[in-house]
Amino acid sequence: MPELHLLSPKGFVAAGVYAGIKRKQTNDIGLLVCTTMASAAAVFTTNQVFAAPVKIGRQHIKTGSLRGVVVNSGNANACTGRQGEKDAIRMCQLAADKVKANPHSFLPSSTGMIGHQLPMEKVSRGIVEAAGQLGDSAEHALAFADAIMTTDLRRKTAAVQVKIGKQKVTLAGVCKGSGMIGPRMALPHATMLAYLTTDATVSPVVLRKLLQQGADVSFNNVTVDDQASTNDTCAILASGASGVKIASPKDIKAFSAALVEVCQSLAYQIAADGEGATKVIEIIVRNAKTEAAAKVIARSIANSPLVKCAVHGNDPMWGRVLCAAGMTDVAFDPAKASLSLQGTLVFDKGAPAEFDAAAASTAMKCDKVVFDLNCRLGKGMATCWTCDLSKEYVTINADYHT
Amino acid sequence: MPELHLLSPKGFVAAGVYAGIKRKQTNDIGLLVCTTMASAAAVFTTNQVFAAPVKIGRQHIKTGSLRGVVVNSGNANACTGRQGEKDAIRMCQLAADKVKANPHSFLPSSTGMIGHQLPMEKVSRGIVEAAGQLGDSAEHALAFADAIMTTDLRRKTAAVQVKIGKQKVTLAGVCKGSGMIGPRMALPHATMLAYLTTDATVSPVVLRKLLQQGADVSFNNVTVDDQASTNDTCAILASGASGVKIASPKDIKAFSAALVEVCQSLAYQIAADGEGATKVIEIIVRNAKTEAAAKVIARSIANSPLVKCAVHGNDPMWGRVLCAAGMTDVAFDPAKASLSLQGTLVFDKGAPAEFDAAAASTAMKCDKVVFDLNCRLGKGMATCWTCDLSKEYVTINADYHT
Repeated sequence: MPELHLLSPKGFVAAGVYAGIKRKQTNDIGLLVCTTMASAAAVFTTNQVFAAPVKIGRQHIKTGSLRGVVVNSGNANACTGRQGEKDAIRMCQLAADKVKANPHSFLPSSTGMIGHQLPMEKVSRGIVEAAGQLGDSAEHALAFADAIMTTDLRRKTAAVQVKIGKQKVTLAGVCKGSGMIGPRMALPHATMLAYLTTDATVSPVVLRKLLQQGADVSFNNVTVDDQASTNDTCAILASGASGVKIASPKDIKAFSAALVEVCQSLAYQIAADGEGATKVIEIIVRNAKTEAAAKVIARSIANSPLVKCAVHGNDPMWGRVLCAAGMTDVAFDPAKASLSLQGTLVFDKGAPAEFDAAAASTAMKCDKVVFDLNCRLGKGMATCWTCDLSKEYVTINADYHT
Repeated sequence: MPELHLLSPKGFVAAGVYAGIKRKQTNDIGLLVCTTMASAAAVFTTNQVFAAPVKIGRQHIKTGSLRGVVVNSGNANACTGRQGEKDAIRMCQLAADKVKANPHSFLPSSTGMIGHQLPMEKVSRGIVEAAGQLGDSAEHALAFADAIMTTDLRRKTAAVQVKIGKQKVTLAGVCKGSGMIGPRMALPHATMLAYLTTDATVSPVVLRKLLQQGADVSFNNVTVDDQASTNDTCAILASGASGVKIASPKDIKAFSAALVEVCQSLAYQIAADGEGATKVIEIIVRNAKTEAAAKVIARSIANSPLVKCAVHGNDPMWGRVLCAAGMTDVAFDPAKASLSLQGTLVFDKGAPAEFDAAAASTAMKCDKVVFDLNCRLGKGMATCWTCDLSKEYVTINADYHT
């Protein structure tokens, strides 16, 4: 079987071009188009400072249908006032014109520097050029994936096929995100951008529900620097081109599982490509009072710069994990809790466990370090992903100049 | 006038010795003793994972009086179970024995690594040695200040004299803290340690109220890494040796202002000596909906690694400040807000302000960078202090090995 990509689901074409918005000469305008009107849903940042394309996107998604997505990287079009809104609308108009669609059926997205007006001449030229290159090959999918990247070092893509009865539907996605990552996305409200495509037939109501549920156990549980960006956006478009309808509880369940799989794969890839990251940190919190509490504790640990530095140094300094677990507003009792690091018990019910620190350090020298915290207070569980904190993070963010 | 120090307030003696707890050969046992029973108050970490000395200290402060404080650095005595509690009690007993006091009249404190049992032989020898060296000179004050330091590079001390009627009282303090700094201290509940001495006569009730108020506008508004430690403690001891009673509203106001001055000076010194810090970032939030809201917004900005890195690189990237301001749960409206950086307006009511980016960057090349955010939503105001994020922070925390 050939490798699946964003355009493997039937009914989609895409393109990506370099329009000169980014200094680095890599694609910065992307166009993803459904050949017919797609059923669609989207979740956006909950940050009160949201970018112009987020404002326009919230309006356009209300109908539950989209023809496509038009994206630029290199400029976030955030904190840009009325001019920014006009420019986001103009991006939709240009894309829609080229495919003979209604401008309101396009979702605009931007990612990059905050506080600068879009260079609309370049953006316009880029959209027109991209529209002239639309296609459904793996190369087209890659060109689009490249167009949404900023400080990302790797492309992030995922795709699965699901059996629905005797038939098959395909679900695929691409995303970007490396810094300013700590999404809290909600309906109808990341600079995480993620776009999912499927050729299943799914109603907007079902799509909305499944997308929020999927984002909550994936993108909303990944953090690089805990910054909920002004631009975070995740959208799904269902072309229906497979002719397979997702409506029965059983089919919805199967489709939902596939959606979670794609979203979690993409979220994991964001953590792995976090600015300056050398490894992923997975934090599992079990038996917290509630699922929400588990999430708060996991996120607090994931956001501790001390935990992130200790992991970077392969130091089994578990005290920093306990400290972060106890400092939130939700219930946590060290006397009941136990913590393991890479499968080794390091803390048990209020006191240190005996373990070989040198062996534990060696076990940390790999791509993924897992902390597993058992709270013994309830049944809430959550998993959160982050990356270590390296000097490279400082280089990227102190030197990424205006 | 000779320079004031921790032992300038009459009625106090102190000592600091090296007992071999820290690898670095600098003092690690400190003893601060009041020659009579002192009126006292303390605030402790609100972290649910609190160290054994915090548990014991909460019990001992209940009477509103203390004879002294016994502290070790190099080991936090946190996550150490029942043995840790016994050791904290033993520290009090040893110190009290030497000055013929009740063990319950001593407040124990520890700071350093979490999860290791105290080396009690060294600790015991150190306490006995320190007790034999007690004195009230500036050198004794410095020896105590050194004994509470861990990754600190500089001693942190402050002192003021206040006129009460025709008389004078002295208020002094020392503190330590460089990493794991994001105190949220409350009564009777900060690895920030701070000890204040005064020769004024103040009731425990008044001391408690003034200490919480003072901590709330100083230590509780400083963050290096947003980690509310397992050991944070701030205690004040009033010897009464000046014979000046603080009881009238006017005198309480004057004393309170002095206490805030000492606490804010110490808090600022913590930010300036934050792990890897090259400069202090001061965040002023004005006209937020409430004072609490102003504090939440200021702290969110102070905790943004992106803001901290931008300041480190002298980059006037104000969009990161706006992003952090909008991501909290409290009200913030970019359309109403304006932001200035080192006195230059950079964002005004939803849109970027015109400014000279090169000049703004040059203005950031100094010891203190000030962001001043006007929310125009109410009357709430708060000031928060943090430091920039440098590669040195990573070196300190990835290489500070177990």
